[in-house]
Amino acid sequence: MENEHKKGNGMTKTRIGILGYGNLGRGVELACRQNDDMELVALFTRRDPATVKMLTQGVPVYAAADLPAHANDVDVLVLCGGSANDLPKQTPAVAGLFNVVDSFDTHANIPEHFAAVDEAARAGGKVAIISAGWDPGMFSIARLYANCILPDGKDYTFWGRGVSQGHSDAIRRIPGVVDARQYTVPVPASLQAVRNGENPDLSTRQKHTRECYVVAEEGADKTAITQAIVTMPNYFADYDTTVEFISQEELNRDHAGIPHGGSVIRTGVTGDNGESQHTIEYSLKLDSNPEFTGGVLCACARAAHRLSAEGQIGCRTLFDIAPSYLSAKSSDQLRASML
Amino acid sequence: MENEHKKGNGMTKTRIGILGYGNLGRGVELACRQNDDMELVALFTRRDPATVKMLTQGVPVYAAADLPAHANDVDVLVLCGGSANDLPKQTPAVAGLFNVVDSFDTHANIPEHFAAVDEAARAGGKVAIISAGWDPGMFSIARLYANCILPDGKDYTFWGRGVSQGHSDAIRRIPGVVDARQYTVPVPASLQAVRNGENPDLSTRQKHTRECYVVAEEGADKTAITQAIVTMPNYFADYDTTVEFISQEELNRDHAGIPHGGSVIRTGVTGDNGESQHTIEYSLKLDSNPEFTGGVLCACARAAHRLSAEGQIGCRTLFDIAPSYLSAKSSDQLRASML
Repeated sequence: MENEHKKGNGMTKTRIGILGYGNLGRGVELACRQNDDMELVALFTRRDPATVKMLTQGVPVYAAADLPAHANDVDVLVLCGGSANDLPKQTPAVAGLFNVVDSFDTHANIPEHFAAVDEAARAGGKVAIISAGWDPGMFSIARLYANCILPDGKDYTFWGRGVSQGHSDAIRRIPGVVDARQYTVPVPASLQAVRNGENPDLSTRQKHTRECYVVAEEGADKTAITQAIVTMPNYFADYDTTVEFISQEELNRDHAGIPHGGSVIRTGVTGDNGESQHTIEYSLKLDSNPEFTGGVLCACARAAHRLSAEGQIGCRTLFDIAPSYLSAKSSDQLRASML
Repeated sequence: MENEHKKGNGMTKTRIGILGYGNLGRGVELACRQNDDMELVALFTRRDPATVKMLTQGVPVYAAADLPAHANDVDVLVLCGGSANDLPKQTPAVAGLFNVVDSFDTHANIPEHFAAVDEAARAGGKVAIISAGWDPGMFSIARLYANCILPDGKDYTFWGRGVSQGHSDAIRRIPGVVDARQYTVPVPASLQAVRNGENPDLSTRQKHTRECYVVAEEGADKTAITQAIVTMPNYFADYDTTVEFISQEELNRDHAGIPHGGSVIRTGVTGDNGESQHTIEYSLKLDSNPEFTGGVLCACARAAHRLSAEGQIGCRTLFDIAPSYLSAKSSDQLRASML
């Protein structure tokens, strides 16, 4: 097969560039260290490069505006901006210059983002992989495989327990709030009912609860803040939401991490009359959402480099990539050791 | 991408042939009914075709010896024989005539089987997919993805609770045994320790126990049978094995099903000093092992047909196949609905 002869026969390290150095950028930086066939060669930032202190010594930091000048120095550029404001513009803008990978996660806008990135990548003869993370990403793959194998069934996705950055930000925008951390929590009884194969129909409220830890300004109206949170449309109104006020010290001490996770479950039936029941579950328990996502992005960068070396062009998602492309091992090694 | 334009644009149904009509053959037959784009067009058997009664009306039954005469009537032949004696010969023998899919599951012999099937398929210009089931198969994919994302970690596979056909057969070969059913059972404390991220080193005995339900001949020496079971090398000697004697009626009533399942777990670390811990778990709970495996084989038959229509040839495993190839939906539909 195509990748049979490309792997392991002297292909040099994949030279990785990172655009954007927030939590996710650091996650990719750390993931590069764990993969011997990856080398982080450049960081690009919209800040003043002189002000950026990286975890890794010796990696040059460039201004994002200088990206075009480095198109030949980087095999794959990993875009680490946000899905709301950065990636919809950034990924199409650079996909003609670099092989790129992003973690675009606004599910509803994926078809539009795919089309824009595909056009740019094809025009430049490059490979792009979008929406690579855990949801979209690993959870999506779990949904797809499960649907192919069990066509007659029902899908469930539970998120958490974990920190939702978007919901935390929404709380911070309320007047009188200094800082906040929001946890998305699956409802244990609903999760158990799904795992038991009971195929429940679950409302939004029955699937997840939301726990909010809020630091208020001195003298702020806590009742008003609580009311503003629990009635906030889309974010909280459809959920059972609890609000607890804590000090900044407590928030820093007890809520510094960015854990997340969840489960994708498909239950389905087979047999002459649907008499056999089956449950497929893929679950993640992650201490650090950005570091885990960094690992997915790195594996996809390897695949992008390999696809590009084969002469392929255009946009892909994890749906379009054979699993072996994500691995540093040869197909022979994989069959002998992991199949 | 390659499959972008192939899907959904008037491709006719995939015409499936089945070779071998045991539990697995029936599983594939039932899976075909659940997939609108599949049509079961022929069953091939080594028995006298006149003696085979299928669940589905109107499907012609042919002698296995007549396979070559039907090479043009079948898009994909699904081989439903056993891995010990049937598939090592059958799959290479027919892979030059048909696109084929099998569930060859003798892990240690996969490289050899792959090479033999690949040679035959290439010579005939056909596509073959081997070792498609749940282990090898879905469990293998789970191991591969998890290893790519978390390079610094540890793998665990637990099987069960479920029926091991091979172990049940081994018991039946003991003198004085009429019938038997063996369940492989994960040790709950070990499974929990792994899920907790404790990274235990587990011996064979610490991972699984074996429960045996045995029907003995009237007057048989039950102590001798028990001793023969629990001391049997490879099969039972390395496990804590329990043996319970029951009547044939009880066996038929309480142990008629062929359930199975298990979990693939990878725990790993990320971070500047490995300070973040992650757990990835893929688990299956299956009422019917052969019916679930039939679902995997059917999805792979779809992929084989599509790959062949693209002009690809040679042997593949699930490692080499982009997930979207297993689905009846177009790439556009998948991105919009499942990513």
